[in-house]
Amino acid sequence: MILRQLFDSDSSTYTYLIADPTTREAVLVDPVLEHVERDLKLLAELGLELRYVLETHVHADHVTAAGQLRERTGARTCASGAGAPCVDQHLKDGDVVRVGDVAITALATPGHTDDGMSFHVGRYVLTGDTLLIRGCGRADFQNGDAGALWDSITGVLFALPDDTVVLPGHDYKGFTSSTIGEEKRVNPRVAGRDRAAFIELMAALNLPRPKKLDVAVPANRACGKVAPIQAS
Amino acid sequence: MILRQLFDSDSSTYTYLIADPTTREAVLVDPVLEHVERDLKLLAELGLELRYVLETHVHADHVTAAGQLRERTGARTCASGAGAPCVDQHLKDGDVVRVGDVAITALATPGHTDDGMSFHVGRYVLTGDTLLIRGCGRADFQNGDAGALWDSITGVLFALPDDTVVLPGHDYKGFTSSTIGEEKRVNPRVAGRDRAAFIELMAALNLPRPKKLDVAVPANRACGKVAPIQAS
Repeated sequence: MILRQLFDSDSSTYTYLIADPTTREAVLVDPVLEHVERDLKLLAELGLELRYVLETHVHADHVTAAGQLRERTGARTCASGAGAPCVDQHLKDGDVVRVGDVAITALATPGHTDDGMSFHVGRYVLTGDTLLIRGCGRADFQNGDAGALWDSITGVLFALPDDTVVLPGHDYKGFTSSTIGEEKRVNPRVAGRDRAAFIELMAALNLPRPKKLDVAVPANRACGKVAPIQAS
Repeated sequence: MILRQLFDSDSSTYTYLIADPTTREAVLVDPVLEHVERDLKLLAELGLELRYVLETHVHADHVTAAGQLRERTGARTCASGAGAPCVDQHLKDGDVVRVGDVAITALATPGHTDDGMSFHVGRYVLTGDTLLIRGCGRADFQNGDAGALWDSITGVLFALPDDTVVLPGHDYKGFTSSTIGEEKRVNPRVAGRDRAAFIELMAALNLPRPKKLDVAVPANRACGKVAPIQAS
């Protein structure tokens, strides 16, 4: 399997390129609008054909490249049925997206948002904003629910083998990967806590409103189409 | 083998943690002064003992954490004999640094600076500033030499198997890894050029002087000890 981690330094977002080295079919997970040219060039340089764009959720902090990539490559866009209405294919828990011999299993992991999906492929799990390295996504907007987030992290992701490599949707401290076993032991949001204590902790975070929320969410529900500014 | 890539967003520097999963002995390559606490915490969380700090070269764009890590952990610092005089062990081409069953081979790759070293471990090569993803280090200060850089890239690094994973010392575009085969084919600095054309290209770059040069180089020659500001 080909697996590449790509970074957007403005929003600290990770995009992932996954491909079958034989058939040269590829998937991009959470591509960022500002990096369409970088990502298309990388696909071309590696001789890969983009078949699917997957979204872990409707993002509030950056605009997706899914729509542009679909237009320019014919790739199918996929996300949770609770997420963006614009996508070609709605995924539910357990659905498998295949490129060649590479099987990517969608895991419903709501809580940060109600449409949260993680993607399990080989010994890796792409956790979106559900589980971050030594952290987790917030749960105070977009139908977030701290109880559901606890259940997704501890019930779904922590059920994977301890040596599964965690590849998050963001990182703000310079980490690029972790493992399920490590996050079970030392993730300060969940280690040593129960569900009630986690909900209490998340309710007390008092985080500022995401700067791009009002632009990014509607744009991402339209696969990255940013609404034109209305003439007054 | 445990291998973690860590990032400093201020200087776009990658630090690498390499460890033997059985003996729990670890190496840090190119640690950054501002991240001493992050890196020590990560070592503790993973139950690792830092044995060596390796430098790919005397950096001009950030200050090393080598000296502080040595003081706080007892780790030995290692770098090219042409580099920082402060280190405990001078490495020459072909020297091997071992932690448990993990053998890290030093490859002399001068050119960006005269003390450039790459580190080959398993199917990975840490290329410092010699080979970057779709680029290479500049060769216009610290005894840089574009001809030597060409020889290091094409003669030393490109002699490794094509599927060797390239882990660079920096990236400015959001790439985290590449392969030797890929850089041979599409690295715009070297693909389709000969040595003379490469030297000509490097001479014409006209890059600005690195902002931190005057602070970072003397500090790094002292393993990260920043000179106190003189009273006037």
